[in-house]
Amino acid sequence: MAHLIRDKKKLLNRLARIKGQINAIERAIEQGEDSCEPVLQRIAACRGAMNGLMAQVIEGHVRSHLLDPHTKPTSHQAEAAQELLDVIHTYLK
Amino acid sequence: MAHLIRDKKKLLNRLARIKGQINAIERAIEQGEDSCEPVLQRIAACRGAMNGLMAQVIEGHVRSHLLDPHTKPTSHQAEAAQELLDVIHTYLK
Amino acid sequence: MAHLIRDKKKLLNRLARIKGQINAIERAIEQGEDSCEPVLQRIAACRGAMNGLMAQVIEGHVRSHLLDPHTKPTSHQAEAAQELLDVIHTYLK
Amino acid sequence: MAHLIRDKKKLLNRLARIKGQINAIERAIEQGEDSCEPVLQRIAACRGAMNGLMAQVIEGHVRSHLLDPHTKPTSHQAEAAQELLDVIHTYLK
Repeated sequence: MAHLIRDKKKLLNRLARIKGQINAIERAIEQGEDSCEPVLQRIAACRGAMNGLMAQVIEGHVRSHLLDPHTKPTSHQAEAAQELLDVIHTYLK
Repeated sequence: MAHLIRDKKKLLNRLARIKGQINAIERAIEQGEDSCEPVLQRIAACRGAMNGLMAQVIEGHVRSHLLDPHTKPTSHQAEAAQELLDVIHTYLK
Repeated sequence: MAHLIRDKKKLLNRLARIKGQINAIERAIEQGEDSCEPVLQRIAACRGAMNGLMAQVIEGHVRSHLLDPHTKPTSHQAEAAQELLDVIHTYLK
Repeated sequence: MAHLIRDKKKLLNRLARIKGQINAIERAIEQGEDSCEPVLQRIAACRGAMNGLMAQVIEGHVRSHLLDPHTKPTSHQAEAAQELLDVIHTYLK
């Protein structure tokens, strides 16, 4: 779990933003806002923020758990990890 | 906004579940949980719940705003709406 | 099907590009290319192209079938259609 | 590239199915099929097939390049790889 501890502050900041977005959606629905466009946009934004959170947790997972944290990765492994993370970022944009 | 008001209770229930999931992720990170698997799984579950919320808001949006709420849709329009929603559900699973 | 006919040329161009990408992936795998990075990137690009195709077919579907093609949509309906398509584009980027 | 070679037959089979789907979409559009529902469904199916292809290439990439192919992975690394692949499968369903 090294990476969840190391990245704790950044992850909690991401979660705080996501909670703010969820609360804004909730308020809009509770108050019967008169247009659903802002709700649609906020849900889309919140999904983007969730994807960013997932990308960061996956990056930490790959670098701390798949690569052996006690051995320097070979350059081949380091490159393969970067290629994987690049693809994952494309899918989690 | 007819649909956000009509579906208010269901939407708030979905949001409450999403908030519960976000809080569980936050707790896991704050407490320095010793495995990141539960965090990965909870983020994936939360994304699924967000997708379900989006699908429901889109469905209401299509039925209340794209179709003319003051005129019964033609059977062609009703069918086209259902086809669209079926595809959107496939993408938001 | 008005829109599939009207947009035929654009849609076939999109399909031709997708086929070119699939063929490039196939060649890379048949030839035993010595790195999988280009394959990962081409699959990601191909998925992007498929999403663009889907977005265009959905846009035609919404404008030609959900809105009544024989009646000018109200400004409310036209706006609701645009809002829906904006959200769909966000998800299909 | 060991994995692209080892999985060559499976990957080419997946690509052949994807090409069949693309060709069916192309034919439907060229012939001016009178409903866009089959086109919507085929594009969705094709995206699913592309996601399956991506999941398989990523799995090979992780197992052959991120884990050191010359050293047996520790049980911790093997477990971490499986957790990552499980999450990726959830997103690529």
